[in-house]
Amino acid sequence: MPQPKSPSESSMAVDEATVVSSAPPFGLNRYLQERGALIEQHLAVSVAECDGPANRLIESMRYSLMAGGKRLRPILALAACEAVGGQVEAALGYACALEMIHTYSLVHDDLPCMDDDDLRRGRPTNHKVFGEAIATLAGDGLLTDAFGLIARCVKSAGIPAEVVVETIAELADACGSAGMVGGQVLDLMAEGQPLTQRELEHLHSRKTGALFVASVCGGARLGGARSVQLQSLRDYAGALGLAFQVTDDLLDVEQTTGHLGKRTQKDHKRGKATYPSIVGIERSRALAHELARHACEALASFDSRADPLRMLAGFAVERNL
Amino acid sequence: MPQPKSPSESSMAVDEATVVSSAPPFGLNRYLQERGALIEQHLAVSVAECDGPANRLIESMRYSLMAGGKRLRPILALAACEAVGGQVEAALGYACALEMIHTYSLVHDDLPCMDDDDLRRGRPTNHKVFGEAIATLAGDGLLTDAFGLIARCVKSAGIPAEVVVETIAELADACGSAGMVGGQVLDLMAEGQPLTQRELEHLHSRKTGALFVASVCGGARLGGARSVQLQSLRDYAGALGLAFQVTDDLLDVEQTTGHLGKRTQKDHKRGKATYPSIVGIERSRALAHELARHACEALASFDSRADPLRMLAGFAVERNL
Repeated sequence: MPQPKSPSESSMAVDEATVVSSAPPFGLNRYLQERGALIEQHLAVSVAECDGPANRLIESMRYSLMAGGKRLRPILALAACEAVGGQVEAALGYACALEMIHTYSLVHDDLPCMDDDDLRRGRPTNHKVFGEAIATLAGDGLLTDAFGLIARCVKSAGIPAEVVVETIAELADACGSAGMVGGQVLDLMAEGQPLTQRELEHLHSRKTGALFVASVCGGARLGGARSVQLQSLRDYAGALGLAFQVTDDLLDVEQTTGHLGKRTQKDHKRGKATYPSIVGIERSRALAHELARHACEALASFDSRADPLRMLAGFAVERNL
Repeated sequence: MPQPKSPSESSMAVDEATVVSSAPPFGLNRYLQERGALIEQHLAVSVAECDGPANRLIESMRYSLMAGGKRLRPILALAACEAVGGQVEAALGYACALEMIHTYSLVHDDLPCMDDDDLRRGRPTNHKVFGEAIATLAGDGLLTDAFGLIARCVKSAGIPAEVVVETIAELADACGSAGMVGGQVLDLMAEGQPLTQRELEHLHSRKTGALFVASVCGGARLGGARSVQLQSLRDYAGALGLAFQVTDDLLDVEQTTGHLGKRTQKDHKRGKATYPSIVGIERSRALAHELARHACEALASFDSRADPLRMLAGFAVERNL
């Protein structure tokens, strides 16, 4: 699925030595597989097994963290780091922290007092296995340890401390009351309420979009991005995040529980507004593709090192999982 | 309650201009009041009211955050900052973040799936007012926003970024799976189990002690502490944290619910091991005072700028609230 090159791209001064355009055609599946394996390997070390009575906590954290999943946020962070010419190692700790934060949000989201879900990534949800108390604490542990991981890992990767502090500040904003957690509350409050498309967009830009933006921009920042690049990547990630969410809504309608590994049609059952419920299935599908195109257009000034990001925009809307 | 000066103190080279030994005798109550007011003022700005549907989240966060309390952790951070010659402004954002983290831990701890408490700081617990879902998210928001606050505030206070990163790393370790959250799990697992004094000490060093150490050491680090000072302060805070916990156990036995503003004798009712249950009330009281003395001894090489820390060690065991 190669993307059309932008006209402005050829005019960019790029370091020819690091451009991969002479490499064999870029294969998305292989890329996702290789990057996924790298992430798995580092996640397993980041939340390491231990002995002693508190091991139950680590077990619970690892149960949800190591349960597979697309690893899209960490892969985006690594791809963004490389798109601006950085080495993948610079963003690896950050990438793992993103997946830990994403996982904590799923564990808390699945709790009986929230969405009350029994199934996640094809397995019983965390609280079904470990109980609500440990599940709540596992979420807390993943969230807290994620910030520690960023602060420690980037130190070993030789990133300037100013960049680390800025990355942490932006990530906290993206995940906290002004971002993901606030979006989660909007989602709860909207249950059974009719929403306009604009309101739904605002909800998702906070609930899922903000973490996508932090994934891409944080990865790029750790890779040495200039501020003009960060602005383009912010546009890219905003569009991609929304495209991802519209696609999620479509999958929720169209796929079976067995295929997705989580309960489907739950939005409809809980009276939650979705893109298909507001603009219909066909228009939702068109919107997702339009957003993915918009995401790629935001990368117009980037060279072929941004090809993985271009492909990932396509993947966000063409996936069936 | 002036503390005896250590012999080594007079040999220290100190900046005479900033030494407050010529000031009127140090009054603990006034100090706690003034510092408490400073913290309240900055907390109110740190989690600011907002409009819109997500306001319910901020309301819930503020309900627990602005409910009073001793503010001991932030006051310790400011006192430690000044003890090493720093300006209080350097640690103010960090101090607020500590209280946010302490508050999040109380909100989650009070949830029905955890300690199931109805009363905290003399008011109905968060989930009793806002429901379990919002209470869970309010805790998540406080924890996440705390890290953002540190990253942003210390930037405006002109602290070297390396120091900020180190402070964040240590705080995350103190609060995460290896610290407070892990201690919370130990506490859950220990319910109904007989514990030795040593096991109880380990539990508390993680559940409450680690955050005390991070409060003192983080505040001092932001104030420009040298590593030899940090080591002494770590000893001080470890002893103070344990003294605080032993006193908490004593208050739980001796005081009424109306006086403490939270349910009492709950440890006993839940079959939790406490210092009084293991070593008896008299020995517990002696232990608390012994630990407070040990904390002060750890400050032997500090001048009178550490007097607030010395007084706070006394306060930790002599309080009746």
